Amino acid sequence: MNDRFLRALAREPVDATPIWIMRQAGRYLPEYRATRERAGDFLTLCKTPELACEVTLQPLARFDLDAAILFSDILTIPDAMGLGLSLNEGIGPRFAHPVRTRAEIDALPIPDPEQELRYVTEAVRLIKRELSGRVPLIGFAGSPWTLATYMVEGGSSRDFGKVKPLVYADPDSAHALLDKVARATTLYLNAQIAAGVDAVMLFDTWGGALSADAYQRFSLDYMCRILEALTPGTPTIVFTKGGGLWLERIAASGCSAVGVDWTMDLGEARARVGERVALQGNLDPAIMLTTPEVVAAEARAVLDAFGAGPGHVFNLGHGVTPAVPPENVRALVDTVHEYSRRYHRD
Amino acid sequence: MNDRFLRALAREPVDATPIWIMRQAGRYLPEYRATRERAGDFLTLCKTPELACEVTLQPLARFDLDAAILFSDILTIPDAMGLGLSLNEGIGPRFAHPVRTRAEIDALPIPDPEQELRYVTEAVRLIKRELSGRVPLIGFAGSPWTLATYMVEGGSSRDFGKVKPLVYADPDSAHALLDKVARATTLYLNAQIAAGVDAVMLFDTWGGALSADAYQRFSLDYMCRILEALTPGTPTIVFTKGGGLWLERIAASGCSAVGVDWTMDLGEARARVGERVALQGNLDPAIMLTTPEVVAAEARAVLDAFGAGPGHVFNLGHGVTPAVPPENVRALVDTVHEYSRRYHRD
Repeated sequence: MNDRFLRALAREPVDATPIWIMRQAGRYLPEYRATRERAGDFLTLCKTPELACEVTLQPLARFDLDAAILFSDILTIPDAMGLGLSLNEGIGPRFAHPVRTRAEIDALPIPDPEQELRYVTEAVRLIKRELSGRVPLIGFAGSPWTLATYMVEGGSSRDFGKVKPLVYADPDSAHALLDKVARATTLYLNAQIAAGVDAVMLFDTWGGALSADAYQRFSLDYMCRILEALTPGTPTIVFTKGGGLWLERIAASGCSAVGVDWTMDLGEARARVGERVALQGNLDPAIMLTTPEVVAAEARAVLDAFGAGPGHVFNLGHGVTPAVPPENVRALVDTVHEYSRRYHRD
Repeated sequence: MNDRFLRALAREPVDATPIWIMRQAGRYLPEYRATRERAGDFLTLCKTPELACEVTLQPLARFDLDAAILFSDILTIPDAMGLGLSLNEGIGPRFAHPVRTRAEIDALPIPDPEQELRYVTEAVRLIKRELSGRVPLIGFAGSPWTLATYMVEGGSSRDFGKVKPLVYADPDSAHALLDKVARATTLYLNAQIAAGVDAVMLFDTWGGALSADAYQRFSLDYMCRILEALTPGTPTIVFTKGGGLWLERIAASGCSAVGVDWTMDLGEARARVGERVALQGNLDPAIMLTTPEVVAAEARAVLDAFGAGPGHVFNLGHGVTPAVPPENVRALVDTVHEYSRRYHRD
């Protein structure tokens, strides 16, 4: 197996910096759009293991990526809890039954991953078979806080005008909700691990919207709890978008690697975490909208910022967007592999 | 005059921590909504000095605030440059003529603040007369980078899919645009100062969307240039939302105070800037949606985080939102004044 990705997570020497890209199986690829068209809608694509497997593998056929990531969505858990998810491009996710009262929180079931979420573990097993050891497969889940924002708001939000008042005015109910989501997420990720994923990532997309103190109590603490309860030996990545101020605390969460968005200089990030964890990131996704030449130059700048030695998984600072030309992704992947070799010589 | 606000900006002793609130003249006040209704639309409200004066003074009649802020909008400058601004609640700002090519950038005029923006300086003169020295008046402008995002995108944006590629792929054109906006902003703020404002604030709402390096070159450098060219002796506040990672650099910009959003612990912020500048902030605006009791408790926590001594202007970490009950604003203002006295004894 190409084990650059797993070696980098363990901060072991590699020949070149590994790279994968958040949302690498996505709308910027014409072959993805074709499969998506066949599926009819996004949720059917997620829930049909054969199709999820197909789109997971598409970017690997095109680019020399060092890891695959399960094609799925962070909202599968609340969907399995009965909130009635619909995902429409342009509008974003919507829940038919948002959760707002203590009674609604207490009534939430904890899904059995091999029952209500079996389509996910089926997809993992299929993908692992199809990959046949070429590259590792990453499983993932949303952080409890991030899932809670969607579950309480009923969809995307700019100001979190419902979930934040819940947190501040009724912290007991907020903790009851987060505790339940954390327990469901632990079962879910352990089922993904049992099905074969080689590493798992927690996406804390909205942790950065919290205050320093609230982040600790309502997001990071629950991610720590999940990390502690995962099948031992599984490499883990925690990514809090906008979490740069709290880097040391995230690095102490028990994860193998911290995902870093593009607002932080990667050299500074490395100086702050020292030898504790690997780092994943952190090119501004907007750079992918320019030209192969600009992409290559900016990728080199990120590699220069990290510098020599192991412990870096290259990625964007957030997901690749639909308008990105695939040739820019090729330029990125190839530049990272070629240029980074100078930083991995003995 | 109640000079707590100006004394705090100068880090001089005060009897109690001063407070004003971003967007304090706004939709959460029924009297604002009534004036707005009379004006017909938001832009007419901005462009009619009598009405702008009226809404500027409304929150001061209700609450014991320590400063007034000119009622206006950061997009007045691009509007005066001929971009054709429309502001619709729900949709957000839109420009009929966005600026994208080098030719369009080079053709942009620099507005004369006493001509195309005379409605602003007129409003300042009116408000100063009506205030008759009760509290200081804050003038403001958007940062060049923040204005450029709207001018290039044509409105609000999530990913900055047009302005960021301009910055990365054609930095010369981006600098030409930012230079022009910075020159226009300098004239505009100096005209506000000549008309009577007692301090000015730069709102860098979208600086936090940039990488560390791009922030320096495309946002902070232009704010520094403006600060250098302002009428000497004017107290200044720079607020980059999401700029916590770059606090020391912002503190070295030449401003009197740095605005801090709610993601940073204010005690840590103070430790990082030392005696260089005052700090303004930083309650999470979402807390204002709870109850007077929760608001009071969280306000005390912010005051405790800053601790004893001068140099703190209390504010939210971003603007107050329309659904906030006015009684929560009263609880905030009164708590800040009462509770902070313990931190200002000799």
